[in-house]
Amino acid sequence: MISRIAILGTGLLGTSVGLALRAAGFKGSIVGWNRGPIGAHYALECGAIDGFTPDAITGVREADISVLAIPIFATLDLMEQLSEIGPEHLITDVGSTKVQITLAAKRLFNTLERAGFLPGHPMAGKERGGADHADATLFRGAVWLFTDDPDWKRSERTATLARDWREWVTKMGAKTLDLDAARHDELVAWVSHLPQFTATALSALLEEEVGDAPELKDVGGRALREMTRLGASPFSMWRDIAHTNTEAVERALLALEQRLAYLRENLRTPGLRDEFEQANKFRRE
Amino acid sequence: MISRIAILGTGLLGTSVGLALRAAGFKGSIVGWNRGPIGAHYALECGAIDGFTPDAITGVREADISVLAIPIFATLDLMEQLSEIGPEHLITDVGSTKVQITLAAKRLFNTLERAGFLPGHPMAGKERGGADHADATLFRGAVWLFTDDPDWKRSERTATLARDWREWVTKMGAKTLDLDAARHDELVAWVSHLPQFTATALSALLEEEVGDAPELKDVGGRALREMTRLGASPFSMWRDIAHTNTEAVERALLALEQRLAYLRENLRTPGLRDEFEQANKFRRE
Repeated sequence: MISRIAILGTGLLGTSVGLALRAAGFKGSIVGWNRGPIGAHYALECGAIDGFTPDAITGVREADISVLAIPIFATLDLMEQLSEIGPEHLITDVGSTKVQITLAAKRLFNTLERAGFLPGHPMAGKERGGADHADATLFRGAVWLFTDDPDWKRSERTATLARDWREWVTKMGAKTLDLDAARHDELVAWVSHLPQFTATALSALLEEEVGDAPELKDVGGRALREMTRLGASPFSMWRDIAHTNTEAVERALLALEQRLAYLRENLRTPGLRDEFEQANKFRRE
Repeated sequence: MISRIAILGTGLLGTSVGLALRAAGFKGSIVGWNRGPIGAHYALECGAIDGFTPDAITGVREADISVLAIPIFATLDLMEQLSEIGPEHLITDVGSTKVQITLAAKRLFNTLERAGFLPGHPMAGKERGGADHADATLFRGAVWLFTDDPDWKRSERTATLARDWREWVTKMGAKTLDLDAARHDELVAWVSHLPQFTATALSALLEEEVGDAPELKDVGGRALREMTRLGASPFSMWRDIAHTNTEAVERALLALEQRLAYLRENLRTPGLRDEFEQANKFRRE
């Protein structure tokens, strides 16, 4: 059914998609494109792609399914440039916020005469990006969110391709879950963006407090390493998230500040026990 | 040299000490005592101890070295009861805050006529306590802090026992580090207590926001699991820490609240980049 997939952006996620597709048994061709040549060549070398496409638009024109695996604002720009692509093609993406991308998908695609666009978001990643950290098993056990809109009138071909892509996502080991785009962005503000920004703030603070004494970092042990691992995440990836989900992230951060203040004011009261018990509940199987 | 060690409190840490001593080749006898019979029997079954002592005071009287592995306030209480023990004995502990315990060690021990007391704190633990989570490798690669005071005048025997204990700590795989007690409590407020209370606040908040929808917890993936793993930590262990290191923990929490607020107010400014870069530094090898 699908004979050719284009991966536009062979960073950590794009390259991992190529590797995972191969591991799941995809036999068609996978071509890649990347803004920088190093990531593109690394993706070719590790077998995530088997050839290059000269530019993103050509890549989409010649592929059945194209996967946009570039930052959010770059995705929005490219979507504008792809709006003339015809209804034989499905485009999907892996962007971390979905309201703006889903609005653009509605405005530019998903009619009988136009390409299909299936907004997607695999909840998988690493604190360090780049094709050289790619992993065929990255999506195993992860949730792959879609913010598809049931009211979109797709051509029969793009509707079939969308079903096919969901099947490949499952074969890559992910569990699919459909959410409304607004609900998606609200949810990931809590379960993904808040943990990241918390790790960033904690790491930045600790760098100030103990960064000049490397032996003191070791003192913290595993707990400290875990709580600051995401501190290594690159700004380049999180800038677009901060810009496209600002209000929800602000709400989540403010709620955590208030929770920390409550805990601080209750270190010697029974309120501390209640907070631990509430936290224990979250971790109960 | 050391023919008998008493482990008073066979929870996670006490039982792990017994297992680690055996794994490191300690051939003498190890007796245990525990407030609850389940932990004591589990420690015997897994080979961490080879017998019981009827009560803590008898345990110390009959041992060369005694390891207090009970909560901080229980440690302080027991220290009062042990003050008549003679200078043939060394007592050490594993409590997570050290100012109060070190003051008591100075007041009650460490003269030529009295037992030696070496205040210790292995930076190792798990989010779930109890002898059944004990592990012979728990201290491998961990830092084991001591807040010994060079001015204490110990008997030759207890001074030798203190050196012996440090050697066993090294043989258990830990790195020893000496700190002033006040500096210890300040440091662990940053690198241990702040990460714990942050995980507790984050977990408690997320339980409120998404706790009623278990499928949404899965969405967060590895990053969320890591950032909330310590949310499972028991209040029973952290209560004494909150009570005995209140001011330092308050300062650390307030600083994190301010850092989160700064980040929240700068989601769309270059300030966000600076925070990420500062956090990246903390994680740089």
